[in-house]
This record gives sequence, C-alpha cells and structure tokens, in this order.
Amino acid sequence: MSERYDIAIVGSGPAGLSAALNAKIRKKSFILFGSKNLSSKIQKAPKINNYLGFPGSSGDKLGEAFIKHIEDMDIQITEERINNIYSMGDYFALMVNQKMYEAKSVILATGVEFSKPLVGELEYLGKGVGYCATCDAPLYKEKVVCIVSSNEEGEQEANYVSEIASKVYYIPLYKGDYKLNDNIELVEDRPVEVQGEGKVNKLILKDREILTDGVFLLKDAISPAQLVPGLQEEEGHVKVDRLMTTNLKGLFACGDCVGKPYQYIKAAGEGNIASLSAVSYLDKLK
Amino acid sequence: MSERYDIAIVGSGPAGLSAALNAKIRKKSFILFGSKNLSSKIQKAPKINNYLGFPGSSGDKLGEAFIKHIEDMDIQITEERINNIYSMGDYFALMVNQKMYEAKSVILATGVEFSKPLVGELEYLGKGVGYCATCDAPLYKEKVVCIVSSNEEGEQEANYVSEIASKVYYIPLYKGDYKLNDNIELVEDRPVEVQGEGKVNKLILKDREILTDGVFLLKDAISPAQLVPGLQEEEGHVKVDRLMTTNLKGLFACGDCVGKPYQYIKAAGEGNIASLSAVSYLDKLK
Repeated sequence: MSERYDIAIVGSGPAGLSAALNAKIRKKSFILFGSKNLSSKIQKAPKINNYLGFPGSSGDKLGEAFIKHIEDMDIQITEERINNIYSMGDYFALMVNQKMYEAKSVILATGVEFSKPLVGELEYLGKGVGYCATCDAPLYKEKVVCIVSSNEEGEQEANYVSEIASKVYYIPLYKGDYKLNDNIELVEDRPVEVQGEGKVNKLILKDREILTDGVFLLKDAISPAQLVPGLQEEEGHVKVDRLMTTNLKGLFACGDCVGKPYQYIKAAGEGNIASLSAVSYLDKLK
Repeated sequence: MSERYDIAIVGSGPAGLSAALNAKIRKKSFILFGSKNLSSKIQKAPKINNYLGFPGSSGDKLGEAFIKHIEDMDIQITEERINNIYSMGDYFALMVNQKMYEAKSVILATGVEFSKPLVGELEYLGKGVGYCATCDAPLYKEKVVCIVSSNEEGEQEANYVSEIASKVYYIPLYKGDYKLNDNIELVEDRPVEVQGEGKVNKLILKDREILTDGVFLLKDAISPAQLVPGLQEEEGHVKVDRLMTTNLKGLFACGDCVGKPYQYIKAAGEGNIASLSAVSYLDKLK
C-alpha cells in the first residue's frame, strides 16, 4: 500500500513553497507537487520591488533564493500534474493519470489562469472539451482530438493520446522544440472558438478550422473547482476564510487561486497560514 | 496647515514595512510611524526558517535585509508613538502628544502584546491606569505616578511627567542605562497587581508596595481598540476581512494585530494586501 502523507501540497509557486517550509518545520510527512522551475510566472516576472527583504529583485533571482531555501531544508518537488483530487472522508485521493497519491490533508496552491476561456469552451466543457487529455483519452479511441497546450508537458500527453486516437492535432501556445510522435499534426495557429451541436465538432483557429471530436485545453493552472469536485468557489477563486480553510474539511488553499492581489509576498504569507492550519487540523485528528 | 497624507502606516514590523513598499510603488504620499529598530520582536528572534527566500536566518539578519530594502526605496521611518487615531469622516487624525498628523487612510500594523494584563489593570483602566503617560500627565499635577515600561522610550515619558507630578516611580521591564531625571525613583521589581477603591491607590510589586495615584503601563504594542475608538475587535484582535478592511471606512489592519499565526511572512503578506486595499480605497475617493 502506498504511503499516506500528512499533507499534499499542490503547486510550487511562492504559496506552495511557503506552505512546505512549515510542513517541514512542524515535522509532518508531506509531498509537494509542482515543477522544478517553480512557476512559469516567477520565471517571467521582470522586476519585483515589494517582496520585503529583496529590493529590486528579478523574478529569476527571487526564484533562485526560493530554490536555495527549499534545498537547504531538504524539501523535494515531485514533478507530477495532479488531475483530480477527491475527498474520501478522512483522507484525500490525488490522481495523476494512472497513479494515485493519498494524503490526510491537502493544500491547494495552484495559481490562477489569466487567459480568457475560448468562445464555446465553457459551453462544451464535458461535451468534448476537457482539461486532461490523458485522463479522458480512452473516450477518443479511433477519434479525432485537438490538443491546445500552454506548456511543453502537453507534448507527452499528445504522444500518449496519439496511440489511441485516430488523429491528433497539436496546437502549442508556446515556442519550443515540439517532441511529438510522427503521426501528430503540429498546427501553429491561434485557437479562437469551439463549435458543436450538443457536442464538439469543430475547432476554429485564426487561419483555419479543424473538424474534431474533442478539444483538450492544457493550461498552466488548473481550475480548482475542476480539480476538486465539490470545492466552493467565489468570483472565480477558491472560497477561503482568513485561516485559508475551504468548504471541504482538511482542504486548505492559498496564493493566487484564492484571489487578488496576485503578489508573491501575499501568496507566501497565505502559504504559511494554510500550512499552520493544516498542522492544527492534523493535530486534532489524533 | 499640515500636510494630509494619503496613507498613514502605524508600525514598523514586517506588516508595516511591506505596506510601505506598495504605498511607495503606487506613488501615494505616506508616513510610516515606528522605530528605526523596526520591532523589538524582530531583534529578539533567534532563528527564522520560514521566511521564504531566507533560509535559516536570524532575526537580526532579516531585520537588516528589511532595512536595506526600505532604504533602497527611500522610505523613511518617523519615530513617533501614536497615542490615538480618530476617524473624522473623510480623514483620520493621528495624535502624538502635542502634535497631530492627518491622513486620508490608515494602515494599523501595531503588533500584539504578548504579556498578560496585571491583576486589576483592566478594572482600573481610565480610573488611574493608563497607557500613555505624556497624554494624561496634566491629570497628575502634584500627584504620585508609577510608570511601568517595556522599553527605553518610557524614560523620556517619565522625565516629562516628573516635571508635573510630585513623585514618579519608574519600573522598567527591560535592562538598560535608565537615563532618568534625579527626582525619579528607579524601582527594579516586578509589578503584580493594581489595587484601589473606585480609583487606583496602590501598585503591588513582587517585593514591595507603592501608594500611588496613577499607574502607566507603557507597552511595546498598543491595544488597537485603545488606539482607535470605535474599532471592532474579535477575540482580542482587530476584526478584518480577507482584504484587511476593518469596520472603519478607510482604516485597514495587518500583521499580528489582526490575529494568529504570528509569523513574519504572514505579516508581510497581509501588509501587501492592506496597502493595495488602501490604494484602491484612495483611488475611489477621486
């Protein structure tokens, strides 16, 4: 049987890292899911003047200091993308494609997706539009699939789906080397609209249209309500109180996913609170 | 007429400093009240492992980084102790003994006093017990006054009162050089209880008793409700929502004074939020 962690932290931006520091200090067993690059937003931030203690820092430099901090404290980042989190009563099941992780408590620090949804995206969600290609791949056996991806992790998903679907179009929203199987068609164009009749039948791009059975939108940040069934949202963010507790017992949230302002120091502060709330929750379980 | 600031920030711990960074970045006129030593708690903290970006830092080292940051951004600390803040409708009046400052909005970041009140302290508050000796000194003309102080700023207050009162006892709760006027009696003992009949007549210390007309307790942090008449509290802390707004329009609060956890990164994160909320409040006034 797999280990059941005290805390699973989902996201490796400032909120998730800050939460991990306290989990470590408070000697809880935990797993931190994210990217060893931390977050694409940190990498891209040109200059940050309001992270107290780091005057006039670049995102890069702050990111380096963050990585040094977690390395000093012997904290590892597990590079997996969580697709779904289910509350099982006294624990949570965190799904990563074929694998499952278990944790007594969860801290969501998944950030926020700034891009607007495509026209038709929300209308056809679950009717041909999905956010996890590998999860739903079996539904597209011998069918046509479009995969729109914000990052290169989408290439692996596309390769996996291409072994099941009859045809895969890959539409990257980033520049890269695109390591794709030969049977995948690379489409360098900008998606605009998802169309259908009851269910998806077409993806409209700026310069062309593709007849398709499914459209997967692989985003940098996952919508929390999509990730955790039953999670209460408020104006597009996870609803939390000042102790970062959500409506689900044992599940806490922090950082951009709980709302503005979208600032590193705010996210790090909330990560601290969420983590101590999780510790207090765990201590009461005993 | 004196300048009316956009924002007055009261307190120079991590919350107040973080708030000041944003006030500066957002080009608001502001005044930051506090101590150039930042906060006595920062100076005393032995080791802090959970301020993301500063692994295994001492309080001293973090304090230096904070000071460097505000110096780099040309932010000054005004060393005054605010005695009272009054909401005047569309602005606030901040009283410092004889002087008054005005600001359109206020950010409270006054920290929290960890010490328990003395026996009798709350019962005789306003009936001989006070928290600001210089404010109430005129009431003690030719009377006996005890001044219990947590820090050396109390010495100046004691010297001032000694010119009015018939007798001043000074009871320091810290080690220092005690630069006191000759007519002040230094009492190195631990205060235990305030006694009286309707009003204060005695201060009980561990090893002696002093007959007195007034007892001033000069603490590191001021009780927010004491500082701001009408401010709503909840379980001993300023009541705020997630945007750090209080029940008083234009008044925001952050850091330890709004509640646990008492952590630097949490305080700094909240300072960021409070400051951006104040900016948004000011922008709506236009």
